[in-house]
Amino acid sequence: MSARDLATRSCKDCTPGAERLEDAQAAELHLQIDAAWERAADQVIRRVFTFSNFREPFALATQIALLAESQGHHPDLEVSWGKLTVTFTTHHAGGLTESDFVMAAKIDAFAPT
Amino acid sequence: MSARDLATRSCKDCTPGAERLEDAQAAELHLQIDAAWERAADQVIRRVFTFSNFREPFALATQIALLAESQGHHPDLEVSWGKLTVTFTTHHAGGLTESDFVMAAKIDAFAPT
Repeated sequence: MSARDLATRSCKDCTPGAERLEDAQAAELHLQIDAAWERAADQVIRRVFTFSNFREPFALATQIALLAESQGHHPDLEVSWGKLTVTFTTHHAGGLTESDFVMAAKIDAFAPT
Repeated sequence: MSARDLATRSCKDCTPGAERLEDAQAAELHLQIDAAWERAADQVIRRVFTFSNFREPFALATQIALLAESQGHHPDLEVSWGKLTVTFTTHHAGGLTESDFVMAAKIDAFAPT
């Protein structure tokens, strides 16, 4: 599956009821998203965006929040002056599911590099 | 100074160049804001708002972000499903200044109780 394929999938196709990915499956999907996404403790994926004001990280958080509502899959968003941290996990699965990577790929499609 | 007075002040009056508050001064201002604000390690004030969806905490974060831009004093905002955490400190002063309490009082004026 390419990153382009991943970004075109819908989170609604894979949650609820999605099973937590095996580590090898997560590693494979991790290769399909921007290298700036870190996978931590096999539980979450996280990307940090840096800026030189408050407006731009909040604006990006807003784009992500609207996407999250439309997909029904929500990140943790931490906004501070000059920085946005986006974290995904799937709580009901107790770790990473395909939806987390689908969201990451969708964000990669509009986020600054 | 009452909470009403505090909320009507402008952060622009007190930063930049504001000095870090002495602990007794911070304690006095802390009494003027909603009791839900916690003061941690004499460095920050923090309030957690809980909800039962993602939309409402993000909407409140947006109201606070717009206020922060207008005042030129910015919090850390952490949004997740059902929760918003707002944290203020004044980095250039290395701790709490009056502006942090002014922002808290302004937020109290429109935030859900």
